[in-house]
Amino acid sequence: MSDIMDIETYLLQYKKGNISHKELVKKLKEFPFEDLGHTKFDHHRAFRTGFPEVIFGKGKALQHLLQILDKLSKKESSILITKLDENFAKVIQEKYPSSVYNQISKTLMFYPDNFKQKKLKQKKGILIITAGTSDIAIAEEAAVVCELMQFHAEILYDVGVAGLHRILANKSKISSAKVIIVIAGMEGALASVVAGLVSCPVIAVPTSVGYGANFKGLAALLSMINSCAPGVTVVNIDNGFGAAVAAVKIMQLK
Amino acid sequence: MSDIMDIETYLLQYKKGNISHKELVKKLKEFPFEDLGHTKFDHHRAFRTGFPEVIFGKGKALQHLLQILDKLSKKESSILITKLDENFAKVIQEKYPSSVYNQISKTLMFYPDNFKQKKLKQKKGILIITAGTSDIAIAEEAAVVCELMQFHAEILYDVGVAGLHRILANKSKISSAKVIIVIAGMEGALASVVAGLVSCPVIAVPTSVGYGANFKGLAALLSMINSCAPGVTVVNIDNGFGAAVAAVKIMQLK
Amino acid sequence: MSDIMDIETYLLQYKKGNISHKELVKKLKEFPFEDLGHTKFDHHRAFRTGFPEVIFGKGKALQHLLQILDKLSKKESSILITKLDENFAKVIQEKYPSSVYNQISKTLMFYPDNFKQKKLKQKKGILIITAGTSDIAIAEEAAVVCELMQFHAEILYDVGVAGLHRILANKSKISSAKVIIVIAGMEGALASVVAGLVSCPVIAVPTSVGYGANFKGLAALLSMINSCAPGVTVVNIDNGFGAAVAAVKIMQLK
Amino acid sequence: MSDIMDIETYLLQYKKGNISHKELVKKLKEFPFEDLGHTKFDHHRAFRTGFPEVIFGKGKALQHLLQILDKLSKKESSILITKLDENFAKVIQEKYPSSVYNQISKTLMFYPDNFKQKKLKQKKGILIITAGTSDIAIAEEAAVVCELMQFHAEILYDVGVAGLHRILANKSKISSAKVIIVIAGMEGALASVVAGLVSCPVIAVPTSVGYGANFKGLAALLSMINSCAPGVTVVNIDNGFGAAVAAVKIMQLK
Amino acid sequence: MSDIMDIETYLLQYKKGNISHKELVKKLKEFPFEDLGHTKFDHHRAFRTGFPEVIFGKGKALQHLLQILDKLSKKESSILITKLDENFAKVIQEKYPSSVYNQISKTLMFYPDNFKQKKLKQKKGILIITAGTSDIAIAEEAAVVCELMQFHAEILYDVGVAGLHRILANKSKISSAKVIIVIAGMEGALASVVAGLVSCPVIAVPTSVGYGANFKGLAALLSMINSCAPGVTVVNIDNGFGAAVAAVKIMQLK
Amino acid sequence: MSDIMDIETYLLQYKKGNISHKELVKKLKEFPFEDLGHTKFDHHRAFRTGFPEVIFGKGKALQHLLQILDKLSKKESSILITKLDENFAKVIQEKYPSSVYNQISKTLMFYPDNFKQKKLKQKKGILIITAGTSDIAIAEEAAVVCELMQFHAEILYDVGVAGLHRILANKSKISSAKVIIVIAGMEGALASVVAGLVSCPVIAVPTSVGYGANFKGLAALLSMINSCAPGVTVVNIDNGFGAAVAAVKIMQLK
Amino acid sequence: MSDIMDIETYLLQYKKGNISHKELVKKLKEFPFEDLGHTKFDHHRAFRTGFPEVIFGKGKALQHLLQILDKLSKKESSILITKLDENFAKVIQEKYPSSVYNQISKTLMFYPDNFKQKKLKQKKGILIITAGTSDIAIAEEAAVVCELMQFHAEILYDVGVAGLHRILANKSKISSAKVIIVIAGMEGALASVVAGLVSCPVIAVPTSVGYGANFKGLAALLSMINSCAPGVTVVNIDNGFGAAVAAVKIMQLK
Amino acid sequence: MSDIMDIETYLLQYKKGNISHKELVKKLKEFPFEDLGHTKFDHHRAFRTGFPEVIFGKGKALQHLLQILDKLSKKESSILITKLDENFAKVIQEKYPSSVYNQISKTLMFYPDNFKQKKLKQKKGILIITAGTSDIAIAEEAAVVCELMQFHAEILYDVGVAGLHRILANKSKISSAKVIIVIAGMEGALASVVAGLVSCPVIAVPTSVGYGANFKGLAALLSMINSCAPGVTVVNIDNGFGAAVAAVKIMQLK
Repeated sequence: MSDIMDIETYLLQYKKGNISHKELVKKLKEFPFEDLGHTKFDHHRAFRTGFPEVIFGKGKALQHLLQILDKLSKKESSILITKLDENFAKVIQEKYPSSVYNQISKTLMFYPDNFKQKKLKQKKGILIITAGTSDIAIAEEAAVVCELMQFHAEILYDVGVAGLHRILANKSKISSAKVIIVIAGMEGALASVVAGLVSCPVIAVPTSVGYGANFKGLAALLSMINSCAPGVTVVNIDNGFGAAVAAVKIMQLK
Repeated sequence: MSDIMDIETYLLQYKKGNISHKELVKKLKEFPFEDLGHTKFDHHRAFRTGFPEVIFGKGKALQHLLQILDKLSKKESSILITKLDENFAKVIQEKYPSSVYNQISKTLMFYPDNFKQKKLKQKKGILIITAGTSDIAIAEEAAVVCELMQFHAEILYDVGVAGLHRILANKSKISSAKVIIVIAGMEGALASVVAGLVSCPVIAVPTSVGYGANFKGLAALLSMINSCAPGVTVVNIDNGFGAAVAAVKIMQLK
Repeated sequence: MSDIMDIETYLLQYKKGNISHKELVKKLKEFPFEDLGHTKFDHHRAFRTGFPEVIFGKGKALQHLLQILDKLSKKESSILITKLDENFAKVIQEKYPSSVYNQISKTLMFYPDNFKQKKLKQKKGILIITAGTSDIAIAEEAAVVCELMQFHAEILYDVGVAGLHRILANKSKISSAKVIIVIAGMEGALASVVAGLVSCPVIAVPTSVGYGANFKGLAALLSMINSCAPGVTVVNIDNGFGAAVAAVKIMQLK
Repeated sequence: MSDIMDIETYLLQYKKGNISHKELVKKLKEFPFEDLGHTKFDHHRAFRTGFPEVIFGKGKALQHLLQILDKLSKKESSILITKLDENFAKVIQEKYPSSVYNQISKTLMFYPDNFKQKKLKQKKGILIITAGTSDIAIAEEAAVVCELMQFHAEILYDVGVAGLHRILANKSKISSAKVIIVIAGMEGALASVVAGLVSCPVIAVPTSVGYGANFKGLAALLSMINSCAPGVTVVNIDNGFGAAVAAVKIMQLK
Repeated sequence: MSDIMDIETYLLQYKKGNISHKELVKKLKEFPFEDLGHTKFDHHRAFRTGFPEVIFGKGKALQHLLQILDKLSKKESSILITKLDENFAKVIQEKYPSSVYNQISKTLMFYPDNFKQKKLKQKKGILIITAGTSDIAIAEEAAVVCELMQFHAEILYDVGVAGLHRILANKSKISSAKVIIVIAGMEGALASVVAGLVSCPVIAVPTSVGYGANFKGLAALLSMINSCAPGVTVVNIDNGFGAAVAAVKIMQLK
Repeated sequence: MSDIMDIETYLLQYKKGNISHKELVKKLKEFPFEDLGHTKFDHHRAFRTGFPEVIFGKGKALQHLLQILDKLSKKESSILITKLDENFAKVIQEKYPSSVYNQISKTLMFYPDNFKQKKLKQKKGILIITAGTSDIAIAEEAAVVCELMQFHAEILYDVGVAGLHRILANKSKISSAKVIIVIAGMEGALASVVAGLVSCPVIAVPTSVGYGANFKGLAALLSMINSCAPGVTVVNIDNGFGAAVAAVKIMQLK
Repeated sequence: MSDIMDIETYLLQYKKGNISHKELVKKLKEFPFEDLGHTKFDHHRAFRTGFPEVIFGKGKALQHLLQILDKLSKKESSILITKLDENFAKVIQEKYPSSVYNQISKTLMFYPDNFKQKKLKQKKGILIITAGTSDIAIAEEAAVVCELMQFHAEILYDVGVAGLHRILANKSKISSAKVIIVIAGMEGALASVVAGLVSCPVIAVPTSVGYGANFKGLAALLSMINSCAPGVTVVNIDNGFGAAVAAVKIMQLK
Repeated sequence: MSDIMDIETYLLQYKKGNISHKELVKKLKEFPFEDLGHTKFDHHRAFRTGFPEVIFGKGKALQHLLQILDKLSKKESSILITKLDENFAKVIQEKYPSSVYNQISKTLMFYPDNFKQKKLKQKKGILIITAGTSDIAIAEEAAVVCELMQFHAEILYDVGVAGLHRILANKSKISSAKVIIVIAGMEGALASVVAGLVSCPVIAVPTSVGYGANFKGLAALLSMINSCAPGVTVVNIDNGFGAAVAAVKIMQLK
């Protein structure tokens, strides 16, 4: 609702005497996020950027994750951890039995007890296309993030460019999508081919699937960023989360 | 209107006898594009992908460009050449006096004689933000492409992260944009900062502005593709055209 | 005919007294190539590898090129210089009026006076497909090299993946080719798409066409070398010559 | 036999009433591949590209592999998994006792029960040359793939350029090959040396053997792609499978 | 105190007869460091460069570390090992019970028995700012090194650029710092933003936090070295130690 | 003087009625910089970061530079353009005869007419050391920037590590410096050697001097960023300006 | 003694009837190496290149290593395996109890039973200098290889450039060396400093010691290959073996 | 003769009173090099490292070169400038008519008037082998440097690996060399092949000859540094000068 940038609004309320100088300064400084020592929660992010603070699980210590969850579970209505180690997930699930861990996407999502989770009707329009079976993990990560934001993403698996008919046979699904996320490793050519067929926005996710001169996704990244099909935009290698956020942001424009 | 993928439609009309077998095959094979020897025009692209065939001027010989224009000017209602050398532009303008060359963006646009150019009302909502004065060329290229598609893109110049107040002072413009294109060279940090402030889609364009370890835009590209602000998508270095196409595609979703 | 590796043959003739010891050693040492100080001609290469010594024109001084031509024109029935500067070509053509310079491919070819050029019937089966208009130079270079070896290469220009119907519309030509050379810059996706459609060998040539994160052809090279379509083989960036040699070698297998 | 590209053929049969409109559309959409959710099988690939769908084992979950095998074993006459983990192979072999796992090449091949495997006579002509003992795994992978396609590939092990006589001593084998696959790590010089000796096509496979500035095969890849011997074509690092496919495709040309 | 460069001083004392020729040469050769076979201690470094010899723990064998400690603990008043494996730390702590191991920063510090550790009053002025929770290890390493040199470094955790208000809310701390160390992975934009707000020196530490096109810190390194905010200087990826040394050197200038 | 971050100060003055609400908002938004369309001047930067806005001349159009100067010359007491083309400098000097262009450093500096330039006494303590004659341009750029900020930087030219005695012979100068800027191309080893000799801060500037595997300064950059001498900090390749800013910031600490 | 290149010698003996045609051809083809299926031994290498075939242990299967040893131990007087895994070494030592494994250098050396090892007097003149304690493994590898060739290499450990006096204090050893091997990781500056002090050949070995932007030795490699001290030559990262071979080859010149 | 490192010698003479304290210090500080402001001459380098200071011409301003020559021509008996622009050479030759400029190698050499150039007898033993005609410039540079040091280097031009017989035919020359410099661009395989044939030291010079994925010599550099032939050492890309210095240093060992 409020926002650090809404300087004018604050000033007016302060001028009117609705809030004291001390309160105003305190608000400005402390309100928008909360300090956990090692982590600052950005409770306002959902209002400001349209997205809750999703926790990037990789590289964080288990005790830090638990502290973060303890804090967040009291304030947030929905929580998502991405790239979460399976062993960590087990510990977390013991403490938060309602949380759901997806082994393929390595995401953990839950709706804290003190919030009534009203299962909202999921909106449609996002289509995820993967080039191979090995890209499933990233596709699932993207789908889970969409779900968190009340969007149902349909997934077309294993639609590589070396078999064009697979693409052509899914024509109606592809044509009717509002936003398409293309996930591909190896040479990443699928993004160009799909983008050449549709008029909707196409977001490309290079994956680290491949070997040798793939250089952990660099080949797919360079391929996608050089796409001959204009209008393809690209996110980081294996960044299903980021692609989903971008897709949801587009869908939320009215 | 029609589309190579609309196999069913074609079949039905053919079945009904509306088109002969020969016509059908001919249509399928020759209709959607036209052969110029060195270039195949894709007159259907506008219908299929929402965008006319924009000519990438760099690296093409002048005589090829002239042949392409000769053909296109008889069929297309609007023509755009990007990254066009100034000397080539002069020759083209002599032949097509109504064409307009933009020295900064190095784009040439015109509306062929045999088409009545009804100046359509430009839609709003796209905001372009540049980090420095040297990024103007790319910003102008993006704006010209938006204009071609009936969108007016507002531009905020020289809003670098080393002076945060420049960003904060433009808060209302930034907050009210529907799609933002961030153009930045050097370390490309502007994309993360802007994306952290807004809920709308942000498309980042790394530019080759800088020197030394910038490596012709690689630093900005890597920076933007690793943005800590979720939902930033990236196009190729100096690719103002691609960013504009992506932005317009988003705006065209209803 | 003969070959440095045919040690047994030489030995037998020498044993039989057909050639003297001195002759044998001389033959072994001097026969297969000729010394020009700065260049050694490999007159036997045609016998050994199936290809005459084609001169790589780039980076050689004009006087060196002239000396090479002076020598070769007395021995070889056909001569080809690739990547030859236009100004150098003019000087050479003054001296060898029968030579033909191709401005687009930057190749110069001629049949020295003292050889009767019997225009051999050109064999068919090689198809060259380019992704864009800007790849023409490399395609022409490949075609010229094929011609030198008595193969006529058909060229399909501007068949990019962002317009799949262009590919589908050329189905019969693509299906009936014996060897296909795919030439593409930017993201190089065309190689994967074509290789997924045919059973014949596909040789991919990445080109330096593009800009930004293309890094002078690196993106296309990595893309092609990581092709998800098995059996695609790749040559150096802009190496139309090498692709043609590989294609001809395949065609020459009986 | 049939092919998604054979639009004309389908149309004619449909016109003649041999197949109904519904059947035609169904055929076009569903026939050429089968959907397994996470994987789409391309049963037509063998007809279209001359090769069955070989499964890239690396990075796929065991349960996915088992599902794939379950499906494929009912349709395909021969199945190959490459880069397969030894532990996974054990599980698979328990279920498919007739399958053969090659520990060195990490490939698993078998002929499903419901197909009569008539051991076809293996054709000759493919020669594989490795630079060092450590390249054996890739050579074996290539040989297994050749075998799958009824070609027997002879292998010359450990023929490095630092001992030219090893190459010269195998002269007759090298000279009589129809297609040569050169497999080398470190500096990859073997490809240039071999290609300079023969007139047949040479396919180079860089391997990740080496250390330090080898950068996991990058040195060998760059070396081979820059080969001074014209006509060398290159596949991905450690891609014995791809090289074999390319070699077989060449051999299958008649 | 003395220094290998003080040639004049030595000469004068030698001339005056205060030290003999033999003594002088011995001093010059042996005094400034001590030989342990595999390691040479540089006891003079503290005098010469303002810093004791800190031991880089990574990659050293345990027995070598123990030998080094045995020697140093007899001469040095304070000892620090960085990037020390936890298992090694346990062995060392058994032998030197007074040593303190920091699990997060992976540093071990102690004050040998034979030196009276007078807990000096810690000076202030160094501020460490981290972009995310995952950068804590590097921040702690830097703080421990500062502490060793009698400086207390305050740390602001998790102040990323995607939430500018976190930075603005800490304005007074940031403004009053004398030297700021900015630690950030991913795109490393924080360095530019902070440096644009303050007049004091800013030292940037890229971290290897991130994934995909981050390339283990390369993205952050390039970003920081290309900072548009003049005066930012950069140390190696994950080099919290180096940043702290640089900060302390600046603070020690009077 | 004032600062966008001084929210409290503004609020208090506003509360006291010293400034109106409208004035306050206007101040916040418009005061700190001035809009030139393509460039926003940051007149407050000097107060905020300790440095005036220096103009990076490379890549800017001449007309833009002239407009910038026209504006700045009315407000700023001193103006500096770096990396300025000599031809542009000539045009500028015609209009601003008091401006001084340094051909070696490619910098243009002047003190606009309407400001009384009181030649301030230059402070000492900054030492610049270059590895070779070819690094002079960068050294001069750094020295000019220091001068602009009232610091005189002494320069030691051509003190490479391949002749250690050159370093040792300048011992007293090196020892007495407060901040040292080391400028070196090729392998950049000078930074480590100098930093090992002194206790003061050392800022390293890699230069693009060299050839071959130098890769335009990459070798020196990597070398310096990996310096074994702790506390060396690094700026961008050829960034003499940035090094000088960092050095001055350190010197300005009291 | 004999050599595949000695064609003349062979021919003469053959002509004289000393060897038959069959013998000659057999000799040429089979004599110089022996086939083990996966490995070809090059028994002539010692005569031809001055070095026995040293086995690169990394990446070879244990059973292959045992087969190689079984064969070699019957023919060679001395055997060396480099980069050998400790577990493999244990198995080998059980079978060949006289073999010596060096845990630090990871080398295994032995003198097969059927050869009388006359401990030859070791020659002097090779000096190995390492920059840090972590470079010991590579230094030991080099020393072992020298020993194999009857050269004793003296090692100076931990002589980094950040403490110049360590170098100066070892002046006499450095000055009297005939060939110097400099081993350094991090920034590799030691090579330039040492080469600037001596007139003898200097061989530089970059090591993978370091972290972050070291990129596993790339920084040191680039630094050394760009050395400002003329005449420094470089071998692969961590290639102590190669440096020793080069040093011995120089020492063997008379 | 004398040397900065000969501290003992200086001390003794000083002790004996042969030189005063002031003289000693002056000697130590000023004698070994001379200050020209922008360049310090290292007159002692010849004694210390066996080589005179050769001037690297590239990137130096003409006036600086002239000043350097003015100074050097009064002190040195022989002067060499490498990588010298032809236009600069003309100006220099006008002033120093006895100087000789080599257009191919871009070197200028002369023997100043005030020194009697006694044409010394050139020693033999260095062999330079180039892979192609385009590598001549580097070969000539190396030969000129050898000549300067009284060594005559024989050159074998155009001996590429794609024609092994060229190498075999030059067997006696190759076998009798004492040191071999191998110069090759493209894939640089020649170094491995030559080093496998000889027992003498081999120094490899990668050149920037090639195109595409050659990346200005990177391919050849990586190839050579990964040579499978042990004992090959490598210098920088195009560094004929450095290779010659290394070769001469080896030859000067007695």
